[in-house]
Amino acid sequence: MGVKLGILGLGTVGTGTVQLLQNVIGRHPLLQEIEIYRVGVRSLDKPRAVELSTEILTANLEAIVNDPAVDIVVEVMGGLEPARSLILQALKNGKHVVTANKAVIARFGAEIFTAANQAGVYVMLEAAVGGGIPVIQPLKQSLSVNQINAVTGIVNGTTNYILTRMQTEGSNFDDVLADAQRLGYAEADPTADVDGLDAADKIAILASLGFGGRIHLEDVYCEGIRQVSKTDIAYAEKLGFVIKLLAIAKRQSNKNSQLSVRVHPTLVSKTHPLASINGVYNAILVEGEPIGQVMFFGPGAGAGATASAVSSDILNLAATLQTSTANPNPLFTCGHDDYCEIAPIAELVTRFYTRFLTKDQPGVIGKLGTCFGNYGVSLESVVQTGFQEKLAEIVVVTHDVREGDFRQALAEIRDLPAIDSIPSLLRVL
Amino acid sequence: MGVKLGILGLGTVGTGTVQLLQNVIGRHPLLQEIEIYRVGVRSLDKPRAVELSTEILTANLEAIVNDPAVDIVVEVMGGLEPARSLILQALKNGKHVVTANKAVIARFGAEIFTAANQAGVYVMLEAAVGGGIPVIQPLKQSLSVNQINAVTGIVNGTTNYILTRMQTEGSNFDDVLADAQRLGYAEADPTADVDGLDAADKIAILASLGFGGRIHLEDVYCEGIRQVSKTDIAYAEKLGFVIKLLAIAKRQSNKNSQLSVRVHPTLVSKTHPLASINGVYNAILVEGEPIGQVMFFGPGAGAGATASAVSSDILNLAATLQTSTANPNPLFTCGHDDYCEIAPIAELVTRFYTRFLTKDQPGVIGKLGTCFGNYGVSLESVVQTGFQEKLAEIVVVTHDVREGDFRQALAEIRDLPAIDSIPSLLRVL
Repeated sequence: MGVKLGILGLGTVGTGTVQLLQNVIGRHPLLQEIEIYRVGVRSLDKPRAVELSTEILTANLEAIVNDPAVDIVVEVMGGLEPARSLILQALKNGKHVVTANKAVIARFGAEIFTAANQAGVYVMLEAAVGGGIPVIQPLKQSLSVNQINAVTGIVNGTTNYILTRMQTEGSNFDDVLADAQRLGYAEADPTADVDGLDAADKIAILASLGFGGRIHLEDVYCEGIRQVSKTDIAYAEKLGFVIKLLAIAKRQSNKNSQLSVRVHPTLVSKTHPLASINGVYNAILVEGEPIGQVMFFGPGAGAGATASAVSSDILNLAATLQTSTANPNPLFTCGHDDYCEIAPIAELVTRFYTRFLTKDQPGVIGKLGTCFGNYGVSLESVVQTGFQEKLAEIVVVTHDVREGDFRQALAEIRDLPAIDSIPSLLRVL
Repeated sequence: MGVKLGILGLGTVGTGTVQLLQNVIGRHPLLQEIEIYRVGVRSLDKPRAVELSTEILTANLEAIVNDPAVDIVVEVMGGLEPARSLILQALKNGKHVVTANKAVIARFGAEIFTAANQAGVYVMLEAAVGGGIPVIQPLKQSLSVNQINAVTGIVNGTTNYILTRMQTEGSNFDDVLADAQRLGYAEADPTADVDGLDAADKIAILASLGFGGRIHLEDVYCEGIRQVSKTDIAYAEKLGFVIKLLAIAKRQSNKNSQLSVRVHPTLVSKTHPLASINGVYNAILVEGEPIGQVMFFGPGAGAGATASAVSSDILNLAATLQTSTANPNPLFTCGHDDYCEIAPIAELVTRFYTRFLTKDQPGVIGKLGTCFGNYGVSLESVVQTGFQEKLAEIVVVTHDVREGDFRQALAEIRDLPAIDSIPSLLRVL
């Protein structure tokens, strides 16, 4: 037994990881060198799905990160504290860390990677994004030879499940959310998922890796899916689109040094590779020069998938421990101290889909067109789709426009006497 | 300049790789440590798309692999010889090797990896399968913590392009092939692509990595797409399938130690992730426990994509050269000496699609059913689809059946007086 693990947490991911490591037949032979040495849990009395001897299981998590015998600390407890403090303490003690904790990395990544670099150890986080999908390692070790132009992902399974069901069943958001909660696909408090916060954490991590700079999480623009209506899904369908919650990190075409990093529901052309990613699956599309487009697809959550990602990080560290010298491996360390410059959302250049409810008066479409024209917003299509009670419904799709200009036009349109309301505003990929 | 490359070949892939390495801005900073030290070509007089000084360009390829200053030999010349001998000589001289040469690895992998292990150096081959798609490294370094059950790929862009066009246009094979040759998507001699030989090389490599054993290339069952007709594509479409040339390596469900490794045109359900991979794109689907299904999608060929894969191998070796000790990294070496046991195709258990032309007699379907029943072949659907001249056309889809039993039934059916011919026989995923 060469490599001793101290695992923090024995929930879904921890249990899956222990199960994988307890049954190494048919897996990489190096896993046989790995010993589950300590597992830290909150309660020793809770019944467990895995068998662990009493000297392995402990409620003293600090003792694990301070134990000189532990080589690698595997943080799979989740939450911000005490996870952050335990990770930092482990690093300070010269231990490598594997974590599945996107929230901690997205918020405290700078502090954590600085501590790791100072201690000469590595922090691995394959499970933090995309569940089982290998995407962190390919970004660091393979795709980093490219000039990355965009990373676009469906990185939250709960919202993709909800949107997929809304689309296939024609149901509305509240009903599908309630059913998803009943089935265990959504949490009792669904905020982190449906408001896009989980996806924001993940795109901050992917952007940091793809573009080689740190990201202030508060710079990430974030809009969830609560306002997506079945009406818009149906109209999008007719126009050749599906609606997906996309997490996007992209080089601003006009200002090359600035990025746009954002999470929002998005109209995606049905022919786009991300359009057919349904249910709880995740996918991450990377675009770069000279590679073009590559996409990674797989289960975005679940005990087994996440355990695979956690274990692959353990495997890589175990291999490193066999070969390591005093020189750090530049593919494993975080080599960037600078922050990426992120453009405010008003600077985004994108297409928009908007739905208006207007009084049934002649010339409304003309007034809309004039207002948009005054702000340089060029329209791709304007369709009066029908009536809702006594109001005419008009769906507009624009060409590429600066978001700030579009918003100004919209503010003016909102004040037109003919306009009742603007129930929907969505971006188009 | 830390790491000196000796590049063998300056065709499409070599040129793409030089272009990438000559323009390192925005790429991984470690690439700045890499020097294009020698580039070996057949003819020094040929005009080149890249600028290289006269001391770099040489026609003496052996001098490159024997030059003590060269750290990494990058073999992007293709073909079996002299590529194989040069690779072996480079390894013998203690140089790491990066190769894009699936044909050499699939045929001489055992010899090459043995030589590498003896010399304590690495052979990297990301570009050998799937063009730019990172799949070799994820299989070795991430997915290897899983028990792999199947690797299924669309790994030949030319045949996927031809089949996609046959499907969208309703054209027949010969016409699309001729057009593909005119457009440069197929070679003047298309044998390696359309007969499945290129895909067979690639699946042999993927199987070896996925299942941790060497593969005798002659054990790989291989069937190309020449016999795929527009008629079958149309019937498949009606039944809810598309036809793809799949390369499959799979654990036999009944005999767990045996693999089936094969290339053949296959009916794929339209809801399957591989069904929507069109044109020259490649995709590789990996199934394992506990991860479930993950899929990698991207450009399967082309200068830029392949250069990305070659350069990622160079990057990984450069990182290794900074940190390496005498101990080999077990994620980079080939750790298996044994060969996988591959089942003969007769032992395959699969579903079949078959099209019969029969004389228009009553009771033909009954006779077919009886014959199949005698050999334990259970039918999912039998449809008389229409007439071709005076012959009735019948399309049969079976449930899972042992291929040997199915073939025996078919041999007996072929002798029935009512049967005119059996123009199509395809497997169903």
